[in-house]
Amino acid sequence: MSETKPTDAPLFSAPIEVRWRDLDAFNHVNNSNYLTYLEEARLKWLKHVPGEWFSETAMPVLAASQINYRRPIEWPARIAVELYCDRLGSSSATIGHRIVGADDSDTLYSDGHVVMVWMNPSTGKPVNLPEAIRHALGGE
Amino acid sequence: MSETKPTDAPLFSAPIEVRWRDLDAFNHVNNSNYLTYLEEARLKWLKHVPGEWFSETAMPVLAASQINYRRPIEWPARIAVELYCDRLGSSSATIGHRIVGADDSDTLYSDGHVVMVWMNPSTGKPVNLPEAIRHALGGE
Amino acid sequence: MSETKPTDAPLFSAPIEVRWRDLDAFNHVNNSNYLTYLEEARLKWLKHVPGEWFSETAMPVLAASQINYRRPIEWPARIAVELYCDRLGSSSATIGHRIVGADDSDTLYSDGHVVMVWMNPSTGKPVNLPEAIRHALGGE
Amino acid sequence: MSETKPTDAPLFSAPIEVRWRDLDAFNHVNNSNYLTYLEEARLKWLKHVPGEWFSETAMPVLAASQINYRRPIEWPARIAVELYCDRLGSSSATIGHRIVGADDSDTLYSDGHVVMVWMNPSTGKPVNLPEAIRHALGGE
Repeated sequence: MSETKPTDAPLFSAPIEVRWRDLDAFNHVNNSNYLTYLEEARLKWLKHVPGEWFSETAMPVLAASQINYRRPIEWPARIAVELYCDRLGSSSATIGHRIVGADDSDTLYSDGHVVMVWMNPSTGKPVNLPEAIRHALGGE
Repeated sequence: MSETKPTDAPLFSAPIEVRWRDLDAFNHVNNSNYLTYLEEARLKWLKHVPGEWFSETAMPVLAASQINYRRPIEWPARIAVELYCDRLGSSSATIGHRIVGADDSDTLYSDGHVVMVWMNPSTGKPVNLPEAIRHALGGE
Repeated sequence: MSETKPTDAPLFSAPIEVRWRDLDAFNHVNNSNYLTYLEEARLKWLKHVPGEWFSETAMPVLAASQINYRRPIEWPARIAVELYCDRLGSSSATIGHRIVGADDSDTLYSDGHVVMVWMNPSTGKPVNLPEAIRHALGGE
Repeated sequence: MSETKPTDAPLFSAPIEVRWRDLDAFNHVNNSNYLTYLEEARLKWLKHVPGEWFSETAMPVLAASQINYRRPIEWPARIAVELYCDRLGSSSATIGHRIVGADDSDTLYSDGHVVMVWMNPSTGKPVNLPEAIRHALGGE
């Protein structure tokens, strides 16, 4: 749970516009919205990957998420989601994240990771990562 | 990540009404809504605890969350959130969860846990768990 | 904008479970969630209608909404959405609503209506209401 | 319900970032999110108004909303909310809106209006609009 800053550059960084509606009755961004911010960044990254990141026989599914809430996010705020490759498997990848100030990546709001698995939707079985994803994540 | 069923009875079990709006464009409940279901169950449990679970000098804060997505939730669905005490600290508690079928607690949609810390909002420092919470979590 | 109570019985009445996350930073249910409550009630009503309420050539689309916010909704609260047929057209219907106390339908939180149009998705043109819908709305 | 374009310049125009999570199971932005987009634009406008737009004895409350859904919004999309003063009362204002393409204000996704009333929260009675709001809305 320590806040070590990664030494590598992020895979991708996406600015996110915090909405007033993301606040809950405690006047801070609700904990569930962090997953929405991660999802938005992840989808923008996937659109940005050259090549095909999904097909009829290989669709990404979210298998797990882990989030540390380091400091509250308020409205308005200028934040960004940085994505990292924490682990590259044969059919899955662990995507680390840091939610930071858009203008100050040392201000850490959240870190953690999600596990994504590529599955064949008709069989429900894991399949190999699409080549484009493996390359985008630093695999050979 | 194995799906071992806890042998203890849950602290609390809350039926949750899935809404059609919880679905995303993949026609499954979006991953962020799981945190909303957990929050709703947790708040109902806290209201149910006899005694005071917060005060001006001791407010609960969500420090971390970990969620495994075991099988997709559809609409309509009758589900329930079961809460467990996974670990009792001096100022924090780890609350495990299982999202299951409301009529069939062997159908496991999700498991995982959140870490809650009680803090003094004026100092930002952790404080001892309120007595009511300690008792409700099985502490002496 | 007067709060006249309808003399007819509602088409359908759906209890709705208010979630804590529906509150915004003003500690009241956010205005956008009223549309989610109406949607949930409408879909439950449509599932309940005997016969087919949509087909490949006739899908309902929301064309307009009008909502009066009469008094704030808090959490927890036991509310219900009552639906009425305000107007029956050839390809559209105006569905009135009242959001009331689940145990006290004289406590009015909101009223108003939405306009639904049945369209052919391939042509984008309005089509006749499905027979099942016309009957459910009191048409011959 | 005709789509006449206003001849006056908008009071305010706010770009909005559509999120993938705004889509529902029909793969279009859900109707409830339009109110969230309007709220976000309204709050940005209010922050932008020189002078005080609320006080302990004069708080704005949403009294009613009317929305026409002209064409579906998809993800990703670059949209903007334009706000207009449709009517200026003594304690209320009708704020018209147009949701348009961020780069093409002739592409109309939605129009309609909301009614805002300034109230004294302790008495629950309407009060005169704050001077700053009256001026911002073109009143003397």
